[in-house]
Amino acid sequence: MPASPLTDLSRCAIHTMTNKPWTLGQCIDGYREAGIGAMSVWRNVLEPIGAKEAGKMLRAADMRVPALVRGGFFPAHDPGARAAALDVNRTCIDEAREIGAEMVVLVVGAVPGMAMAEARKQTADGIAAVLPHARAAGVKLAIEPLHPMYAADRSCINRMAEARTICEQLRDPFLGIAVDGYHVWWDPDLREEIMLAGEQKTLFAFHVCDWRVETRHPLNDRGLMGDGCIDLRTIRGWVEETGFRGCNEVEVFSDHYWAMDQTQYLQLIRQAYLRYV
Amino acid sequence: MPASPLTDLSRCAIHTMTNKPWTLGQCIDGYREAGIGAMSVWRNVLEPIGAKEAGKMLRAADMRVPALVRGGFFPAHDPGARAAALDVNRTCIDEAREIGAEMVVLVVGAVPGMAMAEARKQTADGIAAVLPHARAAGVKLAIEPLHPMYAADRSCINRMAEARTICEQLRDPFLGIAVDGYHVWWDPDLREEIMLAGEQKTLFAFHVCDWRVETRHPLNDRGLMGDGCIDLRTIRGWVEETGFRGCNEVEVFSDHYWAMDQTQYLQLIRQAYLRYV
Repeated sequence: MPASPLTDLSRCAIHTMTNKPWTLGQCIDGYREAGIGAMSVWRNVLEPIGAKEAGKMLRAADMRVPALVRGGFFPAHDPGARAAALDVNRTCIDEAREIGAEMVVLVVGAVPGMAMAEARKQTADGIAAVLPHARAAGVKLAIEPLHPMYAADRSCINRMAEARTICEQLRDPFLGIAVDGYHVWWDPDLREEIMLAGEQKTLFAFHVCDWRVETRHPLNDRGLMGDGCIDLRTIRGWVEETGFRGCNEVEVFSDHYWAMDQTQYLQLIRQAYLRYV
Repeated sequence: MPASPLTDLSRCAIHTMTNKPWTLGQCIDGYREAGIGAMSVWRNVLEPIGAKEAGKMLRAADMRVPALVRGGFFPAHDPGARAAALDVNRTCIDEAREIGAEMVVLVVGAVPGMAMAEARKQTADGIAAVLPHARAAGVKLAIEPLHPMYAADRSCINRMAEARTICEQLRDPFLGIAVDGYHVWWDPDLREEIMLAGEQKTLFAFHVCDWRVETRHPLNDRGLMGDGCIDLRTIRGWVEETGFRGCNEVEVFSDHYWAMDQTQYLQLIRQAYLRYV
């Protein structure tokens, strides 16, 4: 059953990458002005100023920060590279704490040609290794299953079922799943997996955008909600059926929209959010 | 366990679409000259000459024809369109019989925005409706699960599991599955599903090409075997573990390779087939 339409922006969050041309400061100002009080922060906008300064800015603006995006990329042929990835993930966790983010989103990684089962094993091992650090920092880790189109080089976890396997294996209140409609809308088991994540208390985040028909590029041709074929309202209905009342996070990678005036684009985002999520 | 390397071309088949610039006649001559005795025929190369004439040419060249490609596209909002799709599929079956093809490959279709469960139901209904015609013609129907990247508009069946569900529902010796490495390599259940298809006698076909990293275009940027990350030899090992001894069908859609001299390209295909399949 589809959810009732959203009537306000109170649960709307935007990922800074959605407005890629903007700095962190511009994002904060732009979102505030548009009446949006939550944002997930990508690491590229932290780089120029550091997490400490970013944290001050976000707190001064009274911004809720669902997530730091993104940790992960655990698998590697070389053990040294795997150890380095753990360090990067610990840094992500520290940064997340610094900016007051509730979780780090994990794009878990994949290595072209490595057997998927091995990559998934290395992913589980990597998450297990950094979980104590996350727990100590009070920052949750959310595995984001990525569309199978990214299975070669970005994520060996491509459905909620595979994320659930790792959550069940490590069973920790700080480990859960970020559900992104773009990546999982096609999965026949989606409703069932969302319900299971609800029961297991692993449903940490809900991301929205749309799947354009035709998709012109595998990376940066995501649609704004309503541009494509995903029935986001039905998926939100399932997510809320579990009791989830976190943010609906708008995460759109789009060369088309990045080329627009970002303030005008934000108005489109507001409209699309209220009309289609 | 990976299969032993192939030492000859005796089980190699090529899809005419792999050499898109060529007519049916050019494909037959080119493949013969390259020592390839099997080919799957796409409908576009039948159009200019008709199935009857095509059948004569293929028989005269003593070509084995694993498949006519492609039927399917069953789901539609309009009942009239669904009925028309059944007629098209019956025509495909007639053409397959005419050219001596063992099966019709089904790309089952999808309708942007239609609930996937509804599209799958209409697909099962459509297949059920044309199965008697296939049986009478002695032509098998092979459901080809397509990569989830095509779930919006080309196929609501994206994993072997979903194809199996329909096969189990309709249980008919003329209904099975075409396994294409490009579409299913990422699936964690792939080995298990191939074994199940073996047990259920539904493993009708095995298609090969490669997944390029990065993929530059969702449609026509497939790699030749060895260009990408798919461990085709391991997948062929699983396929052969079931007793499958049909053709290894080379099916590559690639703007890059279509721009080449097709005779030279055929030499690359031969090498890649022996080295990586």
